Amino acid sequence: MTVDKFAALGTANAPGQEVRQSAGNVGNLMRGGRIAGHLIDFSHGDVDAFAPTPGASERFSEALVAGGRQAYTEYRGSADIRSELSEVLAAFTGAPVSPDNGTIITPGTQGALFLAVASLVNAGDKVAIVQPDYFANRKLVEFVGGHPIPVTMDYLGSSQDSGLDLAQLEDAFKAGARVFLFSNPNNPTGAVYSRREIAEIARLAAAFDVMIIADQLYSRLLYAHQNYAHIRAAGPREDRVITIMGPSKTESLSGYRLGIAFGAPAVIERMEKLQAIVSLRAAGYNQAVLRTWFREPKGWLEERIARHQAIRDDLLDLFRDAGMHTREPQAGSYLFPMLPPLAVGLQDFVQLLRHQADVIVTAGTEFGPCPNNIRLNFSQDHAAAVAGGRRIVEMAHRYRK
Amino acid sequence: MTVDKFAALGTANAPGQEVRQSAGNVGNLMRGGRIAGHLIDFSHGDVDAFAPTPGASERFSEALVAGGRQAYTEYRGSADIRSELSEVLAAFTGAPVSPDNGTIITPGTQGALFLAVASLVNAGDKVAIVQPDYFANRKLVEFVGGHPIPVTMDYLGSSQDSGLDLAQLEDAFKAGARVFLFSNPNNPTGAVYSRREIAEIARLAAAFDVMIIADQLYSRLLYAHQNYAHIRAAGPREDRVITIMGPSKTESLSGYRLGIAFGAPAVIERMEKLQAIVSLRAAGYNQAVLRTWFREPKGWLEERIARHQAIRDDLLDLFRDAGMHTREPQAGSYLFPMLPPLAVGLQDFVQLLRHQADVIVTAGTEFGPCPNNIRLNFSQDHAAAVAGGRRIVEMAHRYRK
Repeated sequence: MTVDKFAALGTANAPGQEVRQSAGNVGNLMRGGRIAGHLIDFSHGDVDAFAPTPGASERFSEALVAGGRQAYTEYRGSADIRSELSEVLAAFTGAPVSPDNGTIITPGTQGALFLAVASLVNAGDKVAIVQPDYFANRKLVEFVGGHPIPVTMDYLGSSQDSGLDLAQLEDAFKAGARVFLFSNPNNPTGAVYSRREIAEIARLAAAFDVMIIADQLYSRLLYAHQNYAHIRAAGPREDRVITIMGPSKTESLSGYRLGIAFGAPAVIERMEKLQAIVSLRAAGYNQAVLRTWFREPKGWLEERIARHQAIRDDLLDLFRDAGMHTREPQAGSYLFPMLPPLAVGLQDFVQLLRHQADVIVTAGTEFGPCPNNIRLNFSQDHAAAVAGGRRIVEMAHRYRK
Repeated sequence: MTVDKFAALGTANAPGQEVRQSAGNVGNLMRGGRIAGHLIDFSHGDVDAFAPTPGASERFSEALVAGGRQAYTEYRGSADIRSELSEVLAAFTGAPVSPDNGTIITPGTQGALFLAVASLVNAGDKVAIVQPDYFANRKLVEFVGGHPIPVTMDYLGSSQDSGLDLAQLEDAFKAGARVFLFSNPNNPTGAVYSRREIAEIARLAAAFDVMIIADQLYSRLLYAHQNYAHIRAAGPREDRVITIMGPSKTESLSGYRLGIAFGAPAVIERMEKLQAIVSLRAAGYNQAVLRTWFREPKGWLEERIARHQAIRDDLLDLFRDAGMHTREPQAGSYLFPMLPPLAVGLQDFVQLLRHQADVIVTAGTEFGPCPNNIRLNFSQDHAAAVAGGRRIVEMAHRYRK
């Protein structure tokens, strides 16, 4: 009955779903033999390489002991935990957070994104989204019947700015976009929006009365000498911005499925109403793990960032030496190298990488019109990531047009 | 932008949200003083009174140790766990379950209900729902733009049948309903559909090519001398039924937010695509808790049922002695007593119960046109439940018209 809607939601090439793919006919395309190596899955971070935050499982166990009080929280999540989070999130983002009316805990940041989009976008509404950006953004907008208006990011053009085309953004707002949805740092490129860009986005949104949904999932994993501007502190009225974060990749807590949205109280209220029929609440015991967030031991985050930066730099060197254009990520753990012209299509190359070289990556086409890119989450064991990167380079060489 | 849609999603009177209600003006309506007693929250089960299944936290801890393999499952959930569940669910329901294509693990049964409805109902589609039934059913249908067609259940009229009006159901199918959504046992009344009713529902659904969504969350908590008929084993084609279950109230595992939907492979596939943008997956570590389900120690479930039956019987006696018509629940832990004619409105009475007598219940109007009923989840400490029941009787007496 809803076939069309679901055709656009294809997950066959989405990260984490590789196990459901059959090998297809890529065997016919194979050049040379297998390239030996341990399987590396760049489609998501390796929580075994980077252990969860100290204290996470202890907080979970305490919640189990607390029993019903923690199992059945308000739909928007435990009031105590939201209160604690409001303080650290206000300090981190540089603008006040209302604990009671301005926060909702969700099953992962994906849950928060869905609720925010479904609460703000009606059938027929126009929504400005970035290309490339997180693959679910377009799918979410289309699922609720909205019309995405793409805005290009020239992420290879500059290292000072993200490269977002601000003139295109203004055109999208002029064309009637009521919502702007973007990830910062950008997923898949790791580009961070400059203070100038954030200020200009805030100015344009105010001028055209556009609601902003800012997915800041990776904003804590910020590399040395980088600046990060939180749009909620850059001028828009409190009731015009929803910010989404969560302890996930940076903290290796993805397995707990925790996210938080904060900002505009009227939107948070709608999100809670929707959460009541979508999933009731984030798992009660899991919510307690949020007590470790932003309260990690001294030096813990700095060390985690330094270790990611070392992997990033080695992979960047590898890809750039091979002539593959790659932006240096300013934050997060994604790399988005551009492949040389290939004799096979991107989907086939991705399949070949998996079946011939034991390397799992995500096709660039998941993020926008990027048929020559692949995305790697380099939150991996360092040596394994470098070995996997070498196999990618070798494979790109073999299949060069 | 989507104000209308959200007005229909009101959660102010929903179970678990009482903490967000202000006392309002019920003080003006008060008759007599406070009725002393410990606060009892009948809006949901007390997981402290009934401990979670043995082994649940151990399975969770093992999953933490397993790390990434368990944190990042397929969107539809861990293949190993779905395979184990398929066996026990096939045995329990009396019809085969396809582990690979016919199962999806969700964040709670609420998650499964949302995904099933959103996968099967398009804007404008008609959906037959029961009155009274679980309050989210109507909200889910309306949120995706469907039109509910109510079908009455005369739950006080019989103890052999649930009391569903099968002629009305046929009329709803004749009027174009494409989906029938119902809970069995019925929530809030505890009525179980007889084998005759289930066979007739299956026959009508086949005749009118109607898809069935059966919410069987409480079907394991079946009282002595009761029979339960699983509709998926009653004749419909495999591709026409989605059954939803989960280890929740019966097993006191609600705090883990776990559900499973099984049946029609094409629908399961859509549900997975949607889950990928709604919440990605049920929390990875939590999924491991499902390994305890249907594998409880010998006698564990029987004892749990016996303890619930004892509470049920004491409350039934209390309410019936007070002249409040109440169906004897055949399964589950809900009671739906009918109040005497009151001098105050139902919402006010529910507020008065809370503020004057420390008793939290859910208003009957959440479940259908039942302005004289309240719903109790009696999965509570036995003595506390009886004491709370006495306070309800006393309050009903005080506010009698």
